[in-house]
Amino acid sequence: MEIAFRKQIASLGTSSVREILKLTQNSSTISFAGGLPAEEFLPVEMIGKAFESAINSGPKSLQYGLTEGYSPLRQYILEPMPKKGNQLTLDNILLTTGSQQSIDLMARTFIDDHDVILVETPTYLAALKAFHLQNARVIPVDSDEFGMDIEDLRNKVDQYNPKFIYVNPNFSNPTGRVWSLDRRTSVLDICRSNDVLILEDDPYGELFFHNKAPYPAIFSLDDENSHVIYTSTFSKIVAPALRTGWVIGDSRIIDAMKRIKQASDLHSSSIDQQALYHLLTDFDLEAHIKKLRVEYENRVHVMTELLDQFHVPVKWTMPEGGMFLWVELPEEWNTEKLLNHAVQQGVAFVPGAEFYAESPQKNFLRLNFSYNDEEKIKLGMRRLMIAADAYKSQKH
Amino acid sequence: MEIAFRKQIASLGTSSVREILKLTQNSSTISFAGGLPAEEFLPVEMIGKAFESAINSGPKSLQYGLTEGYSPLRQYILEPMPKKGNQLTLDNILLTTGSQQSIDLMARTFIDDHDVILVETPTYLAALKAFHLQNARVIPVDSDEFGMDIEDLRNKVDQYNPKFIYVNPNFSNPTGRVWSLDRRTSVLDICRSNDVLILEDDPYGELFFHNKAPYPAIFSLDDENSHVIYTSTFSKIVAPALRTGWVIGDSRIIDAMKRIKQASDLHSSSIDQQALYHLLTDFDLEAHIKKLRVEYENRVHVMTELLDQFHVPVKWTMPEGGMFLWVELPEEWNTEKLLNHAVQQGVAFVPGAEFYAESPQKNFLRLNFSYNDEEKIKLGMRRLMIAADAYKSQKH
Repeated sequence: MEIAFRKQIASLGTSSVREILKLTQNSSTISFAGGLPAEEFLPVEMIGKAFESAINSGPKSLQYGLTEGYSPLRQYILEPMPKKGNQLTLDNILLTTGSQQSIDLMARTFIDDHDVILVETPTYLAALKAFHLQNARVIPVDSDEFGMDIEDLRNKVDQYNPKFIYVNPNFSNPTGRVWSLDRRTSVLDICRSNDVLILEDDPYGELFFHNKAPYPAIFSLDDENSHVIYTSTFSKIVAPALRTGWVIGDSRIIDAMKRIKQASDLHSSSIDQQALYHLLTDFDLEAHIKKLRVEYENRVHVMTELLDQFHVPVKWTMPEGGMFLWVELPEEWNTEKLLNHAVQQGVAFVPGAEFYAESPQKNFLRLNFSYNDEEKIKLGMRRLMIAADAYKSQKH
Repeated sequence: MEIAFRKQIASLGTSSVREILKLTQNSSTISFAGGLPAEEFLPVEMIGKAFESAINSGPKSLQYGLTEGYSPLRQYILEPMPKKGNQLTLDNILLTTGSQQSIDLMARTFIDDHDVILVETPTYLAALKAFHLQNARVIPVDSDEFGMDIEDLRNKVDQYNPKFIYVNPNFSNPTGRVWSLDRRTSVLDICRSNDVLILEDDPYGELFFHNKAPYPAIFSLDDENSHVIYTSTFSKIVAPALRTGWVIGDSRIIDAMKRIKQASDLHSSSIDQQALYHLLTDFDLEAHIKKLRVEYENRVHVMTELLDQFHVPVKWTMPEGGMFLWVELPEEWNTEKLLNHAVQQGVAFVPGAEFYAESPQKNFLRLNFSYNDEEKIKLGMRRLMIAADAYKSQKH
């Protein structure tokens, strides 16, 4: 039969990049494409014990749970949050199927057809997809290494009256940038004076290098807890398979998101939430994260040492945390075409063009440095160097 | 700040019933409200072992998984599906966060503003919510104990050109009805000749009594696998906390649903999917389900024996499976008001009016018979009888 999909399905289009990256699964290709944590550091044994404790607590652990999520875990997450005038309670937090679902629920709570969302340039590609699925008009705000350009943001807030702005101030995906404190406070000021919400996505904030935590979250600076909705996840600091993220904010907004979540999946896996709670109470998460910080910093150094040896001019800013290195090639390069050469050589990355709401820049690429160990990073970067040489020789 | 929610948030409105039912949580109230399985039969030990096996398989089990779900589990679910002209492959199945997510993804794949969805009368209330969230126009089709009225369906398909029809032919929620074979084939014929899709929701089909399986799923009757999208779940036959359901159908539709799922949560808990796969391969699920069938049948008999003793005329059809008993009270009764008396007496149910797309009937109520054991059912039904007496005496 002829299938009459909803109009927005087209916006999710078939991505040629995704098709290429599919080819690299289950093969000897070294992938710098995904935002995957290092598997060798996943706390397998502790997670096994945590599931055992959760399930041994009795059959109620396997029954339906609350839409808003397992209360002790919600309480645990709130504990270290900054104490402010407007205290946070369990009504301010919802557990989600990873922070991707927080973004999607935010979109479904606020976006009517053609509503405007402002985003960084470039920005997280799967957030763009969630906004487009709600038929948003997504407008990029000029951005540099310190965050959004304040003048451009002010103009676009005036011009478009956006429903919210989406930001990723710590070790941003894809650029790895860390917003300055000044940009954080300025963006908050603009949003507060114009009554515009901020969706602050912070999956990587804990993964900082040389013991240097980034500036406070914009959420922490908003002392009334009124204009910032904050989301993060256990995927990067514990394990992705448990798909557990959270979203914190104004209780009226959290309540609306909860009602949408109830219609969309009743609740996320509550056995995973209970296991995480056992894990976090029995396990030294801070020591575990410290190990990840050291290891990921080593890995990005190995990666950039090899980038230094490329026969073409490449530019990057050394990340101070996170999982991604954002690499600029000469202006006339097209990294989607480079990806074809790379896959032939057995290495993969994500071409930068995927991360732009408008006017994609084609000469960037995103490399993940957290997933592969040093040996694989070396091998993969050598393959990428050969791919770049092949691209260059074919081009001229 | 003033919060400018999306228009559809209002459609999820605050339900007075939900507010009342909230009061019954964590109390001595006996709840016949939720669609919960019996906790004492949840296979706790086997599920513990299954998680152990899954996690012991190594750190890859804790990494990100595929949006479409863990392949061996998808293959396992397809195995017993009827072999037809158009063979099913892994491209025809997507794992979801319970069948509620299958319904929501179907809504997000097909419903543009004001598109019409046809449903049974009455129908599953959380499906109504998912459709309203997409701003659907939900039109009820007259229904009786054998399923949808064929003439009314034919007229409404002609009149409204619906995007799909939503049906729940086995031990339907809330009525417990089982569609006749004739209605199944007739609905399929109408949908095929008008190129209308059917979303067949079948969470309860395995829970049949006296060894009498219901007629084949409409999906099984559709030999080209072209017009029926089928969803079911492990929530009712294994455990709800693992939130694992599935949806099967035309690969183009499954692919669209997968892309929406990717933007909405990347994937569901893959550790739960892997644990379920281990459970199903090591565990005699069929024997487990047989035990549930016997026990749930006992429970509904205990419940109806007490209904027989009520001092007001009540009517019901004895369910042949599932989890729900649909009870009719005299026409002038209002079961939302009865719920107030019931909660005072320490017993809860869902008033029938919640389950109507239009023109709610106020003199029905839905009782769940699977969750409470015989003693609690007896106690709860005695409380309900007292509540009914109180309602009656206040009314006259």
